[in-house]
Amino acid sequence: MKKIKAGIIGAAGFTGQELIKILSNHDFCELVYVTSTQYAGKLVNESISHLSKNCYDGLKFSAHPETLNEVPSLDIVFLAVPDEVAMHWSPLLLQKGVRIIDISGSFRIKEKAQFELYYKIKHSAEDLLPKAVYGMSEIHRKQIKEAALVANPGCYATSVLLPLFVLKSVLKNSQNRVIVDAKSGTSGAGGRKEKDTLAYSSVYENFKPYKVNMHQHIPEIEQEIVNFLQKQINIRMTPYLLPVFRGILTTMYIFPEVEWESNIISDILQKVSAEEPFIRYIKNPDDIDLKNVQNTNFIDISFHYDKKNNILVLISAIDNLVKGAAGQAVQNMNIMFSLDETHSLF
Amino acid sequence: MKKIKAGIIGAAGFTGQELIKILSNHDFCELVYVTSTQYAGKLVNESISHLSKNCYDGLKFSAHPETLNEVPSLDIVFLAVPDEVAMHWSPLLLQKGVRIIDISGSFRIKEKAQFELYYKIKHSAEDLLPKAVYGMSEIHRKQIKEAALVANPGCYATSVLLPLFVLKSVLKNSQNRVIVDAKSGTSGAGGRKEKDTLAYSSVYENFKPYKVNMHQHIPEIEQEIVNFLQKQINIRMTPYLLPVFRGILTTMYIFPEVEWESNIISDILQKVSAEEPFIRYIKNPDDIDLKNVQNTNFIDISFHYDKKNNILVLISAIDNLVKGAAGQAVQNMNIMFSLDETHSLF
Amino acid sequence: MKKIKAGIIGAAGFTGQELIKILSNHDFCELVYVTSTQYAGKLVNESISHLSKNCYDGLKFSAHPETLNEVPSLDIVFLAVPDEVAMHWSPLLLQKGVRIIDISGSFRIKEKAQFELYYKIKHSAEDLLPKAVYGMSEIHRKQIKEAALVANPGCYATSVLLPLFVLKSVLKNSQNRVIVDAKSGTSGAGGRKEKDTLAYSSVYENFKPYKVNMHQHIPEIEQEIVNFLQKQINIRMTPYLLPVFRGILTTMYIFPEVEWESNIISDILQKVSAEEPFIRYIKNPDDIDLKNVQNTNFIDISFHYDKKNNILVLISAIDNLVKGAAGQAVQNMNIMFSLDETHSLF
Amino acid sequence: MKKIKAGIIGAAGFTGQELIKILSNHDFCELVYVTSTQYAGKLVNESISHLSKNCYDGLKFSAHPETLNEVPSLDIVFLAVPDEVAMHWSPLLLQKGVRIIDISGSFRIKEKAQFELYYKIKHSAEDLLPKAVYGMSEIHRKQIKEAALVANPGCYATSVLLPLFVLKSVLKNSQNRVIVDAKSGTSGAGGRKEKDTLAYSSVYENFKPYKVNMHQHIPEIEQEIVNFLQKQINIRMTPYLLPVFRGILTTMYIFPEVEWESNIISDILQKVSAEEPFIRYIKNPDDIDLKNVQNTNFIDISFHYDKKNNILVLISAIDNLVKGAAGQAVQNMNIMFSLDETHSLF
Repeated sequence: MKKIKAGIIGAAGFTGQELIKILSNHDFCELVYVTSTQYAGKLVNESISHLSKNCYDGLKFSAHPETLNEVPSLDIVFLAVPDEVAMHWSPLLLQKGVRIIDISGSFRIKEKAQFELYYKIKHSAEDLLPKAVYGMSEIHRKQIKEAALVANPGCYATSVLLPLFVLKSVLKNSQNRVIVDAKSGTSGAGGRKEKDTLAYSSVYENFKPYKVNMHQHIPEIEQEIVNFLQKQINIRMTPYLLPVFRGILTTMYIFPEVEWESNIISDILQKVSAEEPFIRYIKNPDDIDLKNVQNTNFIDISFHYDKKNNILVLISAIDNLVKGAAGQAVQNMNIMFSLDETHSLF
Repeated sequence: MKKIKAGIIGAAGFTGQELIKILSNHDFCELVYVTSTQYAGKLVNESISHLSKNCYDGLKFSAHPETLNEVPSLDIVFLAVPDEVAMHWSPLLLQKGVRIIDISGSFRIKEKAQFELYYKIKHSAEDLLPKAVYGMSEIHRKQIKEAALVANPGCYATSVLLPLFVLKSVLKNSQNRVIVDAKSGTSGAGGRKEKDTLAYSSVYENFKPYKVNMHQHIPEIEQEIVNFLQKQINIRMTPYLLPVFRGILTTMYIFPEVEWESNIISDILQKVSAEEPFIRYIKNPDDIDLKNVQNTNFIDISFHYDKKNNILVLISAIDNLVKGAAGQAVQNMNIMFSLDETHSLF
Repeated sequence: MKKIKAGIIGAAGFTGQELIKILSNHDFCELVYVTSTQYAGKLVNESISHLSKNCYDGLKFSAHPETLNEVPSLDIVFLAVPDEVAMHWSPLLLQKGVRIIDISGSFRIKEKAQFELYYKIKHSAEDLLPKAVYGMSEIHRKQIKEAALVANPGCYATSVLLPLFVLKSVLKNSQNRVIVDAKSGTSGAGGRKEKDTLAYSSVYENFKPYKVNMHQHIPEIEQEIVNFLQKQINIRMTPYLLPVFRGILTTMYIFPEVEWESNIISDILQKVSAEEPFIRYIKNPDDIDLKNVQNTNFIDISFHYDKKNNILVLISAIDNLVKGAAGQAVQNMNIMFSLDETHSLF
Repeated sequence: MKKIKAGIIGAAGFTGQELIKILSNHDFCELVYVTSTQYAGKLVNESISHLSKNCYDGLKFSAHPETLNEVPSLDIVFLAVPDEVAMHWSPLLLQKGVRIIDISGSFRIKEKAQFELYYKIKHSAEDLLPKAVYGMSEIHRKQIKEAALVANPGCYATSVLLPLFVLKSVLKNSQNRVIVDAKSGTSGAGGRKEKDTLAYSSVYENFKPYKVNMHQHIPEIEQEIVNFLQKQINIRMTPYLLPVFRGILTTMYIFPEVEWESNIISDILQKVSAEEPFIRYIKNPDDIDLKNVQNTNFIDISFHYDKKNNILVLISAIDNLVKGAAGQAVQNMNIMFSLDETHSLF
């Protein structure tokens, strides 16, 4: 089989590095182009320290491209860059016939106005919005397979949407608001840019909410829920910064309109867990944690049905850099190229 | 003025040590009796390392007493021991005329059956339940002043009750359930006993819920709310273990029956903050965190009124060992002996 | 090729779990027997959370064996148990023809008296001491290949011996004492047993020396140096507990008898780094750290020659659970069964 | 008594904030001027969160002064600013008759050339070098009392010099080189400026050496040793970054020319510990750690005399922000104004 020729634009950030590591185990994908300002000119296997010495033999980081000519011929590009950069390169690369998995937030929200409200920047490539496929692998496999442009989901969105999607049959009978109390490690809360709030001296032995008023992942969550539930759900989301590097643990409070049965919910989760390679059902909610999912592509899901208060407490855990970013991106690439969806992800 | 003669039974645990430190700055209280199995026979100022060398001159840890005779004449005893031990010593000490601040959970819940359901042990001193005063300083000053037995509140309960008490006027018009999503450092989640779950290897870079089904602080919270709100509120509480040592950050989701006004709530918080020495109002909810309250007796309170969803997001932060335990205990002692309530607490 | 049938006695500790993870990627080794008191009866792939769901299909943890009959037919056993247990099982398993990689300290020190002095227990299998091969892969490949019993090196010993071995040609002209200042994460400093010193509350934001007087890895270090340097070197070793989970960073201070040349040392390190798959030379000593080696089987080595003081500062970094334990054990197994030494270790 | 009028130029950094906290407990010093770009115009007691609400009533941060006129009339100024800024303001403030405690490195090294070599900047106030008194309180009390300009020692220097000074009588018979292996928390390793290396993502679960080749505290250490030992000692110093915020633990390896006696050393330490309020002797070197000194002005000292290797292992622990910076600065101020040296420091 001819190998997929892949590139990563923005390969030195947390997600870019994670992609490099995952793809080093991929038998059917050859990484031929990686860009980074910081590492330009350096060998990949000397810069990303966990790789074996003869992995990516001779491959060097390039500087970020200025023109399309600098980008070699590729089957797929992962964009792990700021939104503005992703919106700039996406139309150019698509014209050249390169398929794209965009890890920025640029193409997740269908309505331009919503995007601009939450991201506080202009959308410069709105023509692509209708073509972009929301890359939640377990939900949109068919469309992802055919997609030229996949909008890889946000990390918080992944932690919220997969559990809700899985339980969509019971959620039909719930109120139209869901409370999301979502705790993230530092790598999911701003990357390397917000240097003061992400300094060791600010984060260690601390814990704090942020963006309590409005977080930019809310619109993609609400948009997707409408698609699979066929009704509008409003999200009240409070994100927090944990003193850890990797992982998001999200608790959702859901309000049934009727009384539910715990065993119906556990049966669904059990069944999905048997069918989906990356979804695990954790029976006892006291057993779910970040450790179990760190450095994996799993999403762990658990729940407690508080009968007295008639509230469903639904909890999920992911590694924001893997299932919430690079892992899901590779899962999507595997789908796009008709490979085993789990390849290189265990 | 004659100094208060104080003792601490169980002085080597986290709360006991915190009491020793706070009382070392107290001009009107002399610590004359401290017990510990681990440190028995050792000098206090050589065992608790942050004290100056001539602090508590000559005072040594005693072994835990076996009979009342071993306990010297005291004005007040702090009980920082397991529930069973607190229930054993409380009646004896009271008979001897010693006032008690009990930091265990033994005397917080008025209904014996509720206590036994949540604590999973028999209550061996139920006669004292009616006499015990719930030691939430800001709520029960008058009763605390006269009390022979003060039941010092639980750390989670403090983080929940003070904000709700402060806002009681607006809460009259809310639904009868409140969601409490409460994140605690390890010192508030089981002390030194649960060795496996509190090992560095389990806690570092991790985050997890625990006791999702039922936490023993819920009944004292519900009991107190009835007192100051004159209506029953049910608590849906999810506690979590943070990879930090000190601090609880609690988010409450409250459901108004009508539309509220943000500025009414902020006005109340502003006013209370000006009147109460240990309550601070943090205007921007993105600014509340654990760092600001660690090693202090403050409770920081902030809120966001989510108008779209008609949900009040109410957030508080305390140091569980200070405002949630030893600090509030000393605050109560100051009240009991008609001293400046803040003495030794700044 | 027929797969190697392997067992792990003591599979639930940190090293045992690491072995399970590494062997899950091994194409030529089938894990058929794993023992654990804690997990007895549970499925391996449901207990060790990072494994894919169909990994080790159906394999369950057994209770620790009481008699040899309970141990199935195996080609190799990894002993990840306390010294007493390793000394008990080693002769029995060898008689049954099972090859052994012992990760305890039981068979590293050739002189029984030295072992008993440093380990403070009786040696109950001294007949095996002459047969045991010290399993430092890069030093003893030939003997390891033929060995029935491999004594897997201590983690500190690995961090000290590999750099010294690599530089043995220059060390001929050094004084006969070497200072070892070795900093370890908690998983290398006592495992799960020392619960008080390894509690989160003791470790977080702390750093401390321990066993300053005498550490049990010193005799195996001194014994090996004699072998490859043909002269006695005394080790002055100070170990410390870092507030991290994985990793040892060791600084050695070496005293030349003459003036050395930096470029001779760097040439040697460069050369070894090109030949040995798991040894890396880090040119700038400010660039060596734990992050680069965590979860890898690499040892990173760097140095600074302080000309003014005529002291060689030699620094190494390993993951104590991988290169310092489970990784080196699998490397040794690969050697013993004539496989590619690096198989499953990248 | 008339209160000392004090100012802090550079009050928002880690050391500045620590000064504000310590001085809030000082009965004889009134803080009247604090500067900060970040907090300019804000109330001190609302910006530094651990203060009681009526502490520093009404005091606001000023912007950094541009001319001397902006600085009010003061008895003393603490300079907690970069070296260039300290060199600029020191001559101006001295001319105005303000005494100075300079926490930068500008005036510690008597030889301008040495300063310029190690700090890699020009010295712009060399006239002041002869007048500056090195502010190691326990060594230079007399001169500090009279000083107009005190050069507050470096944090590493404090951790090295105090133990050596205390043991000077035995050190007469040692070799002329001392190895210093010094591990520091992030607040002692570059302050808030080196944002990438001090990001949570770089520091957490990591440990690394830095400035292995040459650290700027070496010359002040060597200079002071000559003064109290009357002989030249060369320092081989390796500093490291610990994943903690506060604290330096330093191990020194000292080489006797003759055999020493452990009990002579312990007798000296015992005696000094009884006389000096901030020096503590920790009998068992396995008991020294950072926790015991964090947030205190203590220096803990312990040792192990390795008789076999004839090496003295001398270990010290301080809080770099207190004894290594702000605490020692206030100790110096107390000396300068003939107050109890320990005032406000317990």
